[in-house]
Amino acid sequence: MREVAILGIGQTKFGELWDRSFREIGIEAGFAALQEAKLSSQDISALYLGNMASGSFIEQEHIAPLILDYAGLAGHHLPAIRVEAGGASGAVALHQAYLAVASGAHDFVVVGGAEKMTDVPEDVQTDIANASADQEWETVFGATLPSLWALVARRHMHDHGTRREDFARIPVMAHEMGSKNPLAHFRNKITLDQVLEGSPVADPLGVMDCAPASDGAAALVLGPLEVARKYTDTPVRIAASQVACDTLALQHRKDVTTVEATVVAAKAAFQRAKKSPKDVQVAEIHDAYSISALMALEDLGFYAKGAAAKGLSEGEVAFGGKLAINTSGGLKAQGQPFGAVGVAQVAEIVRQLRGEAKDRQVSGAKLGLTHNLGGTGATSVVHLLERAN
Amino acid sequence: MREVAILGIGQTKFGELWDRSFREIGIEAGFAALQEAKLSSQDISALYLGNMASGSFIEQEHIAPLILDYAGLAGHHLPAIRVEAGGASGAVALHQAYLAVASGAHDFVVVGGAEKMTDVPEDVQTDIANASADQEWETVFGATLPSLWALVARRHMHDHGTRREDFARIPVMAHEMGSKNPLAHFRNKITLDQVLEGSPVADPLGVMDCAPASDGAAALVLGPLEVARKYTDTPVRIAASQVACDTLALQHRKDVTTVEATVVAAKAAFQRAKKSPKDVQVAEIHDAYSISALMALEDLGFYAKGAAAKGLSEGEVAFGGKLAINTSGGLKAQGQPFGAVGVAQVAEIVRQLRGEAKDRQVSGAKLGLTHNLGGTGATSVVHLLERAN
Repeated sequence: MREVAILGIGQTKFGELWDRSFREIGIEAGFAALQEAKLSSQDISALYLGNMASGSFIEQEHIAPLILDYAGLAGHHLPAIRVEAGGASGAVALHQAYLAVASGAHDFVVVGGAEKMTDVPEDVQTDIANASADQEWETVFGATLPSLWALVARRHMHDHGTRREDFARIPVMAHEMGSKNPLAHFRNKITLDQVLEGSPVADPLGVMDCAPASDGAAALVLGPLEVARKYTDTPVRIAASQVACDTLALQHRKDVTTVEATVVAAKAAFQRAKKSPKDVQVAEIHDAYSISALMALEDLGFYAKGAAAKGLSEGEVAFGGKLAINTSGGLKAQGQPFGAVGVAQVAEIVRQLRGEAKDRQVSGAKLGLTHNLGGTGATSVVHLLERAN
Repeated sequence: MREVAILGIGQTKFGELWDRSFREIGIEAGFAALQEAKLSSQDISALYLGNMASGSFIEQEHIAPLILDYAGLAGHHLPAIRVEAGGASGAVALHQAYLAVASGAHDFVVVGGAEKMTDVPEDVQTDIANASADQEWETVFGATLPSLWALVARRHMHDHGTRREDFARIPVMAHEMGSKNPLAHFRNKITLDQVLEGSPVADPLGVMDCAPASDGAAALVLGPLEVARKYTDTPVRIAASQVACDTLALQHRKDVTTVEATVVAAKAAFQRAKKSPKDVQVAEIHDAYSISALMALEDLGFYAKGAAAKGLSEGEVAFGGKLAINTSGGLKAQGQPFGAVGVAQVAEIVRQLRGEAKDRQVSGAKLGLTHNLGGTGATSVVHLLERAN
C-alpha cells in the first residue's frame, strides 16, 4: 500500500451554532481544507464523512451525498460515503479515506467529520448520545454514558489508588489550551477547585469532567505522499491508522479500568510506524470524560496501568512537559461535535507538526498521536502522524 | 489491487420479524456466511455493516461493534465499521469491504447488511425512510419518497411515452419470483390488474408499485481470489464495484427521468470489468418503486432511454427471457430491510452464478449485476459478479 499524506486541513468554529445548518458547516470545513491543499474540487475523487447520529439530531440520513451536493460537486458523481462509529465516527471515516488512498483506489480524497447537536433539547441530546452504549443491556435500565464512565472512574480509584483530583486536572489543562484556540467552544479558564466542586453529574464525575454537546465540522485532504510536496511545503505523513473494537456493553469487559480496544489499536499503530510512545511529543486524547483521558494515557502505552495519575500530578503530561495533550482544548474545551471530533484531533496535530499552532505550539513536535473513542470504548481509533519534511 | 472473491453468503428470512432483535438477525446472517465459506471467526480480520437508520428505528447507533460483540468476536478486537448511504447502505458497505481486501489491508472480511424496521408504526417508518431524501428542501414541504418517485414516473410517461402498465409488470414478475423464494417477505403471486387497481399511494404509483418495510439481514464473506479455491469450489469474483453520487434533492437534477449516478456507476463498472450490458444474464435491480426499476434498465445500459418499456412488454426482460431480473423477488417481494438490500442482492447473484438457485435458476448465468439505490438516486452502486471457475 502507498504512503498517505495530509495536504490540507479545515475546521469551523465549534460551539452552539444555532444560526448555521449541518450542510453549511460541512462545506465550510471541506472548502477550507481544499483551499489549503491548493487543490480544486476537480482533483478530488471521493468523499468520506464521519457522523454519528444525523438521523436523530436533524432528521437527515444520507448526508455524504448531501455535503457533496452543497459543495457543488454532485455533477462529478463522486462516491460520497458516510461512516458511523459513535463518538469515533470521525477517526473511522479517516481510516476509510486512508485505505482508499493507500490502496491506490483514489488519489485525492476529502474526509470530513460533522455533527449538529445543539438544535435539540438537552434531554434529547443525552438520549441520542446514549445510543452509542448498549440500548438493550445498559441504557434501557437507566444507564447513561456519564454514569457508565463514573462506574469506570470509581473502579479505577479502587483498583489503582487514583484520586479524584488526578483526573480533575485534565479539564483544567483543556480549558487553559481552549482559551488559546479561537475555534474552541469554551475559551474560559477554570481552576481545579471549579472541577472538584462542579455540579455532580454521576459521582465522582461533575459537570466539568464531561465534554459538552457541540456543533461543528472539520475536514482533511489526503493524497499520496509521493506527490505531496507538489501541493504543500509541510506534508504530514499518516504513519499508522488503526481501528479496534470491543464489546458494546461495559459490563462484558474483563477489566473496566482498561479500554482494551485502545491497547490493541495503539500497539498495532506503534508497531506499524516502528515507533514507541516515548517518541510522541503531542497527542489529542479522547477526553469526553476526564477519566477516559486519564485511562487513555495508560492504555496508549504512555504510562503503566495506575501510573498516569503520577504523570499528571508531576507535570510530565502538560503543555511544556514531556507530553503535551489536547492542545486544541480537547473535547472538553474545544468541544464535542461527535462526528467531527476524530477529524479535528488530526487537524490539531497537523498544525503542531507544521509548526503553525501559534501560542499552542509544542516545540520540537515531530510525531503526534490521536485517540478517538466511541461509547465506553467499543470502538477505539489511533492515528500516528509524522512530519514528512 | 488484488482480485476479490465471495466465499460465502448468509441471509435471514425477510419480513415482519417481531420476535427477533436486530442483533439476532445480524449474527444469524454472518454465521451462515462464515459457515458456508468454511472459515472460522478467527480467520476474519474486519467487519463492515451496512445500515441506514438504526438510531431512529431501534434507538441504537454504534451497531457494527454490537454485531461483532454478539457474534462472540469482541475479544478479537477487529475493526467493525458501519456504513450509511440511505437504501444503498448495504452495497456501499460491500464496496468498502471490497477495497479492504483488494488493497491487501485485510484478507478475509465479513460484510453484513441489516435493518429492523417494523417495530415502529407505519407513519414513523415513512418519516425515517424520508430521511434519505433532502429534509430541508423536499420532505419538510410534505414530499415523501413515493411522491418523489411518482413525479419521476409521470415525467417518464410524458417524455418517453411510457405507459402505466409498463412499470406495473415489474411487481408482477417480482411476486412470481418471490413465490419461489423461501426467504421472501411476500410469497403470493399478483396479477397486472392487482397492480393497476392497487390502492393509490402517489399517483400513478399504487401500493403494489412500492416495496414494503421489512426486517432482515444478509452477509457475505470476502477473500482474495488467489486463495478462494481453498475455501469453496464455486468462488464468485467481484469483477467491479462502483459507487456514484448525485444531488440529494430530485429538483436539482437536470433530467429526473435519468438517475445519472447509475449511468456513471454502470459505465465505470462495465469498463473496469471489460464487459458490456449484453454480457449480463441476471441482475438484481433496485425496485423500491416499480418506476425506479424500469429506469434502471435504461440507466444501466440494457436499454436506450425510453426503450425499457418495450423490453418489458415483449418479454425480453423476464425469467426465461434475455435478461432475468430480481429472481430473489426483488425489494418488492423478497422485502426491503434498507441496509440489507444491497448485500442480499449480491447473495442472490452468487446463488445464480453457482447454479444453486433451484427453481429460480437462470440457465447459463455467468455474469450478474446488482444495482442498489439510496433516496431518489443520490447514491447508486453497481456490482458486477462473475463465475470464477
